[in-house]
Amino acid sequence: MDKRNLQVCMTPALFDLYADKKSIVVVVDVLRATSSMCIAFEQGVEKMIPVSTVEEALEYRNNGLDYILAAERNGAPVKSFDFGNSPQVYIDMDVQGRTVVMTTTNGTKSISIAKKEHDVAIGSLLNLDAIAKWLIVQNRDVIIFCAGWKDKFNLEDTLFAGALAQQLVESGLYDGSCDAVQASQVLWEQAKDDVYGFLENSSHRKRLAKLDIDSDVHFCLKVNQTTKIPVLKDGFLVSVNE
Amino acid sequence: MDKRNLQVCMTPALFDLYADKKSIVVVVDVLRATSSMCIAFEQGVEKMIPVSTVEEALEYRNNGLDYILAAERNGAPVKSFDFGNSPQVYIDMDVQGRTVVMTTTNGTKSISIAKKEHDVAIGSLLNLDAIAKWLIVQNRDVIIFCAGWKDKFNLEDTLFAGALAQQLVESGLYDGSCDAVQASQVLWEQAKDDVYGFLENSSHRKRLAKLDIDSDVHFCLKVNQTTKIPVLKDGFLVSVNE
Repeated sequence: MDKRNLQVCMTPALFDLYADKKSIVVVVDVLRATSSMCIAFEQGVEKMIPVSTVEEALEYRNNGLDYILAAERNGAPVKSFDFGNSPQVYIDMDVQGRTVVMTTTNGTKSISIAKKEHDVAIGSLLNLDAIAKWLIVQNRDVIIFCAGWKDKFNLEDTLFAGALAQQLVESGLYDGSCDAVQASQVLWEQAKDDVYGFLENSSHRKRLAKLDIDSDVHFCLKVNQTTKIPVLKDGFLVSVNE
Repeated sequence: MDKRNLQVCMTPALFDLYADKKSIVVVVDVLRATSSMCIAFEQGVEKMIPVSTVEEALEYRNNGLDYILAAERNGAPVKSFDFGNSPQVYIDMDVQGRTVVMTTTNGTKSISIAKKEHDVAIGSLLNLDAIAKWLIVQNRDVIIFCAGWKDKFNLEDTLFAGALAQQLVESGLYDGSCDAVQASQVLWEQAKDDVYGFLENSSHRKRLAKLDIDSDVHFCLKVNQTTKIPVLKDGFLVSVNE
């Protein structure tokens, strides 16, 4: 039997090169958009609406809908929004049954790009094992799509790509010969015992350090805190379980 | 003293994000364009003219100039050209004092992109130590520019980037915090003891395997076979020594 195709796309600027209209695209923005999405569903959020712009998000408020509005730009919360991009706010607040409209610098932009022609699922270290098992059951080609930082390569999303790719390749069902798949697996292998330490000098860690959100970083780097898998259906993220 | 900026650009599709108009850009296409360039100068070639298209290269012949024409597309030599993209042809043939016009799938395209606004030097594993020492003396910011494969990430160019970045960072003069600099160094650290084995499953190795040029691959992966550093001056590549 031919193996399923597996690709890692390291930044949104490269997505057109990997797009094939048939793969499931796993969007990852470890720090912090997709981590927040995974934990939001774990905490009882019913659906999320990822939008590209702050203006689009504000329209939901202007229409009088009882939605939580979450927005981040350049790592910081956007003024007048309910939430920023911190995953921990979903633990501190009661979000049971709520709908969240979210826009972030890189994560929701990547979802917008992917959803045009592909089915989309949301990955983070928080739901690593769950999404790996779920993908294997789907029996489809997969593109792991790193949100990066403003179209540049970043380490933390690539580490997640390596962690997920490793499980898919080890299942024996996926062809792991894509160069970016191989590179990301080597990086994960070196990082996995101390991901926080491995990222200590990364550009985004430094960027976030200025924002004093170190506890968010620790939070986002813990593997397997939820079995929820956010998937996009009709423009909404809803949760499936593996 | 502030450290010099060091960046790794993993594919031509990302170059605009890293371009700063002031860095020296080290173009690398390990398999095989920049390896061929380095060894060509080692073997006595006087100058090389990198061009983007087969048509541009052919104009030099049509103008009756006594130049060697070298062209490769998709890994194979182009019909009616003197040379393809094999570095070993420069050892087998007498090229002393000759001028070579060269066009390749990825390497010369990357040179064309870089030269618009930057000074360009040519790197490969064959001149690794030499170009590292030369760069340190130049005391300028550096972008290591991987030619990749048709705008996708590839492993072998990233390994060279890591090898070169390691020497620059270890000099203490360069800031190594760019995420792509860190990733490429980790990859090189894992690969350096057996680069050929590390690349065994890489996409480009497989692509080249079909072309039966395994001896070229072995040739290109040997470090430090020359101290020549090709640099671009007035549209020509000429050689400087470190």
